[in-house]
Amino acid sequence: MPEERIATVDVTRVTQGSVTRNEDVLAVEEPLEIRVGEKPISVTMRTPGDDYDLAAGFLFTEGLIRSAGEIESIRHWGSPNVVRVALYKPIDTSKLNRHFYTTSSCGVCGKTSIDAVRVLHVAPALLPAHISKDLVYRLPKILEQDQSAFRATGGLHGAAIVSESGELLRIREDIGRHNAVDKVIGSLFREGATPLTNSILVVSSRASFELVQKAVVAGIAVLAAVGAPSTLAVDLAREFGVTLLGFVRDGRFNVYNGEVA
Amino acid sequence: MPEERIATVDVTRVTQGSVTRNEDVLAVEEPLEIRVGEKPISVTMRTPGDDYDLAAGFLFTEGLIRSAGEIESIRHWGSPNVVRVALYKPIDTSKLNRHFYTTSSCGVCGKTSIDAVRVLHVAPALLPAHISKDLVYRLPKILEQDQSAFRATGGLHGAAIVSESGELLRIREDIGRHNAVDKVIGSLFREGATPLTNSILVVSSRASFELVQKAVVAGIAVLAAVGAPSTLAVDLAREFGVTLLGFVRDGRFNVYNGEVA
Repeated sequence: MPEERIATVDVTRVTQGSVTRNEDVLAVEEPLEIRVGEKPISVTMRTPGDDYDLAAGFLFTEGLIRSAGEIESIRHWGSPNVVRVALYKPIDTSKLNRHFYTTSSCGVCGKTSIDAVRVLHVAPALLPAHISKDLVYRLPKILEQDQSAFRATGGLHGAAIVSESGELLRIREDIGRHNAVDKVIGSLFREGATPLTNSILVVSSRASFELVQKAVVAGIAVLAAVGAPSTLAVDLAREFGVTLLGFVRDGRFNVYNGEVA
Repeated sequence: MPEERIATVDVTRVTQGSVTRNEDVLAVEEPLEIRVGEKPISVTMRTPGDDYDLAAGFLFTEGLIRSAGEIESIRHWGSPNVVRVALYKPIDTSKLNRHFYTTSSCGVCGKTSIDAVRVLHVAPALLPAHISKDLVYRLPKILEQDQSAFRATGGLHGAAIVSESGELLRIREDIGRHNAVDKVIGSLFREGATPLTNSILVVSSRASFELVQKAVVAGIAVLAAVGAPSTLAVDLAREFGVTLLGFVRDGRFNVYNGEVA
């Protein structure tokens, strides 16, 4: 596990029977500024590590770029907390601003939000998902087994891409659930592996609107969340044909959209 | 419980032994645009309800206003997902932009972030906290008892303000933890009750940098989180003298800064 993701601090542990001074391992939280060329386009609180995956995944899942071939280079720039992405073609700034308003921020009513996603939807049509109950039961374990930093800190979200046959393709952790998803998708995106058809996005968190949105852009037809979905996540999943599973834990799960055989 | 916070959807429940079709209750997620006068300054994904508390709390904890007396009116504006705050004095837009960069986004390195908070710190100096172990043990129960929408959905964060004698002063729920905190602080802010000295902010979530920041601005000297803190949350708490408690659950807790008697 990369050391940069965790840090040790002094702590006093209090229980009903004892008070002890010792050390605790915490998830590191630091801001990351993402620049496209000279222009800062996002600052997010993230856990250091896999910053290039995060930057690429952010640009991809926010609909700003469509293929890794558009990226000339990604580098840290003057600070471990600044990443500069050089693109072969410039991005239209006015489009960028409109975009951030409509997707990062999701418009002003649910209907508008979903319309905005449809307009901005750059991935191919989703393929129907084929996923078995037995595989779904195994997903939390796949996530847990490889969430090394979470085990140490209890403070990190995990996001994994798993094939329909149950193979772990990639996993990433971050203090922010959106960042964990951007990192795991960005990692495969940089290798030219998107759209991620026939794969499952598994998240340790709840399923928000924005996570479904990121899955759709990446061509992922199944989102399995350990926690609860929101109403808008369900609306969006039904609109785009994403199989949405919630409360995937303890040998059970709920199907909010789609079919599980 | 206000109906607007929850909604019913069809669901298929799958367990090892059964597959049943029935209904599930989910947390509602909708965007809220906050305007100051005619100017949109924020769009956040929130759970409807207590929107005026959210808007006021956001303006206060982000350092844009210091007292409820600065607010002329708060109203929904043409949509249930737009709130317009009229202030007696206009806000300087250039300051606003700089501000958002440095606090919502937290600058580019931890040191810079903390410096930015110090510059923007508008609350009086924090009073030393006096909090007992017995009270800390009771905090999760106080939160749970009044988190009615969470009990229904499993999908909402809770934030409560509790007095040092253990009295629940206010509680709010939201799908976003920052929103829950803005709502609960904003509710008391609107009544002129800030700074919230001698009180405890209890959150059902992890403790991020931004939650500590909001506590500091509100004059709250104790932040108790059910989940883990991040490194930057600990740094900021130590910088400003906030008593920071993490993993407050199951009859135990960790003290990352401050003293508990």
